[in-house]
Parts: sequence; C-alpha cells; structure tokens
Amino acid sequence: MTSPKNHIAVIGAGAWGVALACASARAGSQVTLWSRSPVAPGCRVLPRLPAVTLPEAVTVTSVMPVEADLTLLVVPMQTLRQIAPRLQGQSPLIACCKGLELGTGALPLDILAETQRGRSHAVLSGPNFAIEVAMGAPAAATIAAPSLDEARRHVALLSSPDFRLYASDDPSGVQIAGAAKNVVAIGAGIAIGAGLGENARAALITRAIVEIGRLAAAMGGRAATIAGLSGLGDLILTCTGAGSRNYSLGLELGRGVSLDEILKTRSTVAEGVATAPALAARAQQLGIAMPIIQTVAAFLAGEIDLSQARRHLLERPITVE
Amino acid sequence: MTSPKNHIAVIGAGAWGVALACASARAGSQVTLWSRSPVAPGCRVLPRLPAVTLPEAVTVTSVMPVEADLTLLVVPMQTLRQIAPRLQGQSPLIACCKGLELGTGALPLDILAETQRGRSHAVLSGPNFAIEVAMGAPAAATIAAPSLDEARRHVALLSSPDFRLYASDDPSGVQIAGAAKNVVAIGAGIAIGAGLGENARAALITRAIVEIGRLAAAMGGRAATIAGLSGLGDLILTCTGAGSRNYSLGLELGRGVSLDEILKTRSTVAEGVATAPALAARAQQLGIAMPIIQTVAAFLAGEIDLSQARRHLLERPITVE
Repeated sequence: MTSPKNHIAVIGAGAWGVALACASARAGSQVTLWSRSPVAPGCRVLPRLPAVTLPEAVTVTSVMPVEADLTLLVVPMQTLRQIAPRLQGQSPLIACCKGLELGTGALPLDILAETQRGRSHAVLSGPNFAIEVAMGAPAAATIAAPSLDEARRHVALLSSPDFRLYASDDPSGVQIAGAAKNVVAIGAGIAIGAGLGENARAALITRAIVEIGRLAAAMGGRAATIAGLSGLGDLILTCTGAGSRNYSLGLELGRGVSLDEILKTRSTVAEGVATAPALAARAQQLGIAMPIIQTVAAFLAGEIDLSQARRHLLERPITVE
Repeated sequence: MTSPKNHIAVIGAGAWGVALACASARAGSQVTLWSRSPVAPGCRVLPRLPAVTLPEAVTVTSVMPVEADLTLLVVPMQTLRQIAPRLQGQSPLIACCKGLELGTGALPLDILAETQRGRSHAVLSGPNFAIEVAMGAPAAATIAAPSLDEARRHVALLSSPDFRLYASDDPSGVQIAGAAKNVVAIGAGIAIGAGLGENARAALITRAIVEIGRLAAAMGGRAATIAGLSGLGDLILTCTGAGSRNYSLGLELGRGVSLDEILKTRSTVAEGVATAPALAARAQQLGIAMPIIQTVAAFLAGEIDLSQARRHLLERPITVE
C-alpha cells in the first residue's frame, strides 16, 4: 500500500489500552500508546497484558502525543478528569472508559465537554475482554457519536475483520449501559459467590436490563441501544465471564471476603465500585427505581449485610412478564 | 394446616421432571411422578438426578395417574405426541418441554390441541437448570396460558419462595423462545469450542435475541416476552452454563467431534438437535431471516463444515445498532 497510514493515539496503557492499540495496528494505522508510568525504550510487552507482544506499528511512550488523526482515551473513569486536560492537538476524542464520576455523577462525554471543548467527542463500548481483542479473536463493539456521520468515520478508521465496529448516534444510551453493567456484574458475582446459583443469576441479568433501560430512557438514551452490543452484549459478557474484574470482585464479596481485603490485594481497577454509588445517586435524583444497582451500592457502602444483599438481589426477580 | 393438599401429576421422570416434582412438593402439593421405565416400590432417588432424594410428598409410579388438580408434562419434545394421548382425567395440562416437533414444526401446545382437545393448556418455561431447582436454589420461570386468569391460577398452585412463577398470556412467545434458545446454545458452544472466545459469544447471543424476536413477532408472540425470563433469561443461562446439554454438545462440535460420536456417548436429550431443522424450516416458510438458527441447522445436517459454521456464526454480528 502506498497510501499514508493514519495515526492513532491511545492514551492509557492498561489492558484495554494495549488491546485497542493492537486492534488499531491491525486495522492498518500507526499507533502511539501513551503510558502514565515511564517505559523502557523499545518496550514490546506491557505489565497489564504480559502475554501480548505489541505489533511493530505500535510505539510506546510516556510523552503525551502531540498530534494524531484520532485519540482514544483509555484511562480509568475516575482519572479521566485529571488526564483529559493534558491531551494535545485537535483530533477527535473517543472515550473508551465506562462509568460515572464519583461526586459529580458525570459520564465520560460530560467530562470531555468540560475539559476539551471544541473537539469532536465519541465513545467506544462493547462486549470486549481485552486479552481476546489484543490476541485478534473476533469481537464487535459500538462507536457512538452525536451524529451518525462522525461515528461512521471513526468506525471506518478502526474496524478490521477481527474487530467489527458499528456506528450509533446514541452516546447517552451507550455510556449508561457501559456504566451500569459493571455494577450489575458485582451483583451477579455476589449471587454466584453466595451460592444462589446460575438460575438466579440469569433472572438477575434479565431484570437488570429492564432497570438499565429505565435509566437510559430518563437520560435520553434509546431502548434499542440497551438491547444491543454495548448494552445486553456487554452485560452478558461481564456477568458471566470469569475474566471480568467486577464479576470476580462480586464473587469474592459473595463468599464473605470484605471489600477492603479484596481491594488491598488488587492492582487493577474494578470500575463498578466507584460507579455504584454515583449511579445509585443519579437514579434516585431522577426518581428511577433501580433495585439491583441500589442493592449493590448499599452493600458496598456497608449499609446492608450479605444476607440482606442476597435477599434484595432476588426480590422482584422480573417486572416485564 | 388442615386444608386438603392439591394433587399435582408430573409426567416424565427425567432431570426436569424430578426437579418440578420437588418444587411442587415444596409449594405444598401432593405429587405423583410418572416414570416411563419401571420403578422399584418406595424409590426415592431417580437415575437422572442421582444427587437428589425425593421429598416425602412425591410418589413415583410407572402407572399413568388417573386424576390430579394439575398435570405437568415433562417429556422430551419429540415424544410428546406419543405420550400426550395416554394422559388420563381432565386436569389442566402444562407443557414443560421446549422445542418444535421434527417433521410437522408443531409447538408443544399445537400437539396438545390435537391430542388433548377440550382440556386447558399452558406452558412453563424459564432459566432453570434442573439440579438447582431440585435442590431448592432460588429460581424464576414463566407460566403462559391463553388467558392471564388461567396462568395466574397455575402460578398460585406451583409458586414457592424458592421457585417464583410469573403469569403470562403469550404462550406463542414463550414456546418460540424456549425452542430457539436450545439451537442458539449449540451455536454458542460451537463458538467457544472452536476458540472464537467469549467476546464473540456475547455478540452472538445479542444477535440471537434479535432473530428470535423476528420469528416470535411473525408467529404472534410479543417482544416483551422475548426480553423476559423465558426469552433472554433462558437464553443467557443456556448459552453460558456448563450445565446446559445443548451448549456442551456445541462445545464438542466446535472442538471437531462429530455429531454421531457425541450422540453415541450421551443418554440425555439435547433438544436443539431435533429442533434446529424444524425451526429453520419454519423460519424459511415464514420468510424470516434467522442466520444463527440456519447456520446451526446446516452444520448439524452436514451441509457446511466447521470453518464455514464459524464464519457464518460471526457474520453480521449485530443488526440492531
């Protein structure tokens, strides 16, 4: 090929950042992967995904990239407000984190609107375990921007046969689904860890989709988004896959390990822990009943004990029938 | 309690029949469990669920019960037409099998309408692994009858705190979801067995809900049913739980074992194998695109090989976005 390569900046070298750098390289772009921690020159393997050797087209650096055709923001939700102002250049930004900001209840694009005014903003979300995407196993995700045309341009730049992207113009629905699924996954983990069984978990996931749909509708999102890849698809993956950090945290909680003990032994971020109270507060403020989200938030805050959490997670197992 | 107990007849002593007998006893009824094979007098443990000791309120017999307040039909889908005419009495019948009849494409209630005219008919379906229900782990399911009043009467008779039942007046939607999920589970198993990964499976399940919804709509079912316990809930359980016969059959197929070999070593019924061609034929007849169902049917029939099946299962991963 003689056409010049596109240049993608990936901000954040955690597992998902590494995976998106690999996927972008596979889609034909030149990639700069920014790591917060200093990196050795020529580094090809990063600590968060040690099984993955970076493709040649990926350069790792701890100097913030100055220009790119597209910038993917892949930092933990609770550090987004701190990192976003440091971004250089004018390229469109795609937020690839999931959650609500503690304290403000802000969604990723709310934070970008405040900190990176005037640039084009989108979100990427889907049922994606990082290691599988990094390895090139087939996966799909949604890119949502305020206009479908913008979303389609990003899709064209990042899609490959292994990583299929779909354009959406419902960033609200995509962000809410992405935030809520991590909290529900903690609840699903608690159910399994506490021995309630897979039948109970399946009923819980089914009910969760209903309550997430209610919140999304109240916040301007669409039902079809919640039923799609970034909603239902991601919820299923996160609530059933042992590779999910939030689900595995819930598993330990359900077995009776305290939150403090779990967090002490982990170096990775389980976004649901911070998102739970933020989401529960937002739901309450809007007058939306979200019993699963509220149960998880109350349990994480120590307001109810495990036996109460078990009972609340099973109450009203379904409301759509 | 001084009120006389209700009498439930459970026809079929496979794993699900044993589980429903246990659940009915726990709901306070006297239960007669009919086994096709002869049983020893006073038998308390049946071969399909050897870990379960039957409650005292359950009597096992190989003589077809003559009268009951309610009869649960828990026989394999492909033997329903043969067993249904043998049922005695006039009690309402609840079909607890899932699938379409090979050859005719009939749903369970179609067969009861032909063979047991004049009796009241309903279906029971939900995300229910038999062993968990038998053991009293919490679970939920839907009972659907032509009228909500009928469904509610059955719910009142069979519900207990551990086994929560919800009334529906959409037997078409419930039956179609129950039939389709076993076929999709074979596809999900193939995806995982062939190494496509959990991201691909989550995308597959999300897409499956869309195609099942299309068929249900064409056959008079409702979208809310497909999004509920007996639709989405059951699909999630069957596509992700190692305890699912259809999913585990798909796993082996995905690893390259032939269908003949798998069926030779199994004594249990994977309903999806017979339902796949029946459902694919029904969809084609109605002009409904069901790419996942059709791929599984074509693969089981030997019309496409594993690499073609893998490819087809991943094509068009989603259409709702």
